[in-house]
Amino acid sequence: MHQPGAAVALLKGASAAAADVFRAILTRGPISRIDIARLLGLSQAAVTKAVGPLLDVGLVSDELELPRDGQPGRPANPLMVVADALLSIGIKVNADEIVGVATDLRTTVLAANRRALKTTTPQATVDAIAATVADLADALGDRADRLCAVGVSVSGDVDAHSGVVRESAIMGWTDVPLGALLAGRLDREVLVENDVRALTIGEHWFGVGVGTDLFAIVTIGRGIGSGLHVNGEVVEGAYGVAGEIGHLPLTSPDRICPCGRRGCVEAVAGTPAIVAEVSRAHGRDLSIGEIVELAHEGDPAAVQTFEHAATVIGTAIATLVNLTGPELVIIGGEAVSNFDLFEPHLRASFAEHAFGAAGRCQIVTRPHTFEDWARGASAAAIRHLAENR
Amino acid sequence: MHQPGAAVALLKGASAAAADVFRAILTRGPISRIDIARLLGLSQAAVTKAVGPLLDVGLVSDELELPRDGQPGRPANPLMVVADALLSIGIKVNADEIVGVATDLRTTVLAANRRALKTTTPQATVDAIAATVADLADALGDRADRLCAVGVSVSGDVDAHSGVVRESAIMGWTDVPLGALLAGRLDREVLVENDVRALTIGEHWFGVGVGTDLFAIVTIGRGIGSGLHVNGEVVEGAYGVAGEIGHLPLTSPDRICPCGRRGCVEAVAGTPAIVAEVSRAHGRDLSIGEIVELAHEGDPAAVQTFEHAATVIGTAIATLVNLTGPELVIIGGEAVSNFDLFEPHLRASFAEHAFGAAGRCQIVTRPHTFEDWARGASAAAIRHLAENR
Repeated sequence: MHQPGAAVALLKGASAAAADVFRAILTRGPISRIDIARLLGLSQAAVTKAVGPLLDVGLVSDELELPRDGQPGRPANPLMVVADALLSIGIKVNADEIVGVATDLRTTVLAANRRALKTTTPQATVDAIAATVADLADALGDRADRLCAVGVSVSGDVDAHSGVVRESAIMGWTDVPLGALLAGRLDREVLVENDVRALTIGEHWFGVGVGTDLFAIVTIGRGIGSGLHVNGEVVEGAYGVAGEIGHLPLTSPDRICPCGRRGCVEAVAGTPAIVAEVSRAHGRDLSIGEIVELAHEGDPAAVQTFEHAATVIGTAIATLVNLTGPELVIIGGEAVSNFDLFEPHLRASFAEHAFGAAGRCQIVTRPHTFEDWARGASAAAIRHLAENR
Repeated sequence: MHQPGAAVALLKGASAAAADVFRAILTRGPISRIDIARLLGLSQAAVTKAVGPLLDVGLVSDELELPRDGQPGRPANPLMVVADALLSIGIKVNADEIVGVATDLRTTVLAANRRALKTTTPQATVDAIAATVADLADALGDRADRLCAVGVSVSGDVDAHSGVVRESAIMGWTDVPLGALLAGRLDREVLVENDVRALTIGEHWFGVGVGTDLFAIVTIGRGIGSGLHVNGEVVEGAYGVAGEIGHLPLTSPDRICPCGRRGCVEAVAGTPAIVAEVSRAHGRDLSIGEIVELAHEGDPAAVQTFEHAATVIGTAIATLVNLTGPELVIIGGEAVSNFDLFEPHLRASFAEHAFGAAGRCQIVTRPHTFEDWARGASAAAIRHLAENR
């Protein structure tokens, strides 16, 4: 029944129309042939032609048991993806930990794994990723032969086409050919992607972005990043850079960012900046946990530092919204767990600077776990396979 | 040979695939059926099916005489649009003037017209637009029966779907239903669009944006605006607002913008802000022409004001580039004629704040005439017709 090799070959050789049909079934199924034809502007004959081979290799099924709502004889044979026909691994690279998940085609997590990273050298990172992939494959047992792709997401300037991490401040990397290093170790297709962009791909396909073409994810915490989804796709940037909301020059030029530039959002609103500012005010090194506690107790330095950070983040979101006009901004990242400290000033500065009807954009939070980020990396790998790009 | 009514009906009733085929022929012709099939991921049969009716109503021709490069018998019957099968009018609304052009489907200008606008009331503007359209129709003579659309472009927050100009500072308008007012006067389809977005559509189809999917137009002058082209389309904004680069909060909060917000780019870099600043320094009302002359003579107040404006514009372009990663930024607008006063500081601040590989984005200038803007409005109207949206 399962023919992983034939399924991968079919997807890789698919025409643009056949890839569109598969993507429609993957992300919108169960869906009828007629609805696919309407959605994509194809003839029913073209849809049927594309569906045939997908059925043959077991990627798609039309034998779904649907409740018939008491309508006997209703000719309901919609198409849906056979979610476990192929499996994928998603890896989120953090400075101190590799988080991996094995998922099916709909990014349902089948196995998860975490492994400490003692040093961020490329070699140590590649070793840890390879070990994580091996552990996940073990956990899948005899389904491991269906693993067809590995997606790896890293914070920073990542060129997904070449697999090169051009700059990652958190990892301390410049021009690390992570894709090539991993391809030499893993006997599988590897896609390397910016972490927030991967999360955005996952949210668009299977998360809060479903049904919304124009949305953004903004992550707050150690780094401040964003992923934009516009006109049907994630914004990749002509040179692989986009969504760098943490490096918009929105604050005073006397604030130096870890990236070396002046006045970046991250230089005020990133966790290290908040820690440095409140530690300085108190004359001793504080942890972010202690600072959050101080802020909740009403400590003036901690409260003001969070308020300033929140004002700058709200201004940055207004900037993003005035330029791209999303329907929805999803705030994620580890600092979301203390969003109460950001929310009032963030929303106030957003409202102050949002232009006209763009201000109708909704701002919501979503506490992504590291497994969610790894799922995003898996979604990016599946997209790469399914869209043949 | 020409059947304007049948051609319009065909385009309005086209399936998504047929609309894609027409658009490919319009913007990329001469193009062979095989290349269209490859480009769109359609079967050749589907392309042939879509092309048939386009040939029948005279919108497309396959009888192009091509040089055969000494290759007798080469089967070259590529398709191209019959550019004058349908005609369109584009109108650029300025505060003091209506500029109109009549164009063919490839936005080649067939007739042009300008009419002073004595007052910016909606009624006076509608009257002037209607008179301009009538004059252009007269100029077309017996080709006037091919006029199928009127595109009108206005600076500000324009909802193209409803035809409502929600906010236009330059016209002093709030919630003016310009599309409905014009539809009542002109016996033709009317599309109202933001002026920079219309210019971006025109540049993408027939200008410097051809072959570049990811580009932006930034206009400088009385207003500061931008149009973004990402993932195959102009960015429209979920609520009709996008590209508001003039209203990014990048300057000091003590600068109040004409829009009422604090710290907007336009509050420092728009022509009225430059005029106010230099006039204040000199203690008398100066015109922008006098200020440009003073700056060229080295007057410190004028020079510094332009430098400050240029720094803010360069920072704004870096902001746009860090978020959306374009390949090319085209600077237009009336202040381009004095770009020498902006260029050094603009490029320096862009380089200072552009993030990583995003900084490879090229910045070029292009002096658009008001006729070019009106051509953009015509392109937007043709796109609306051809894409059935």
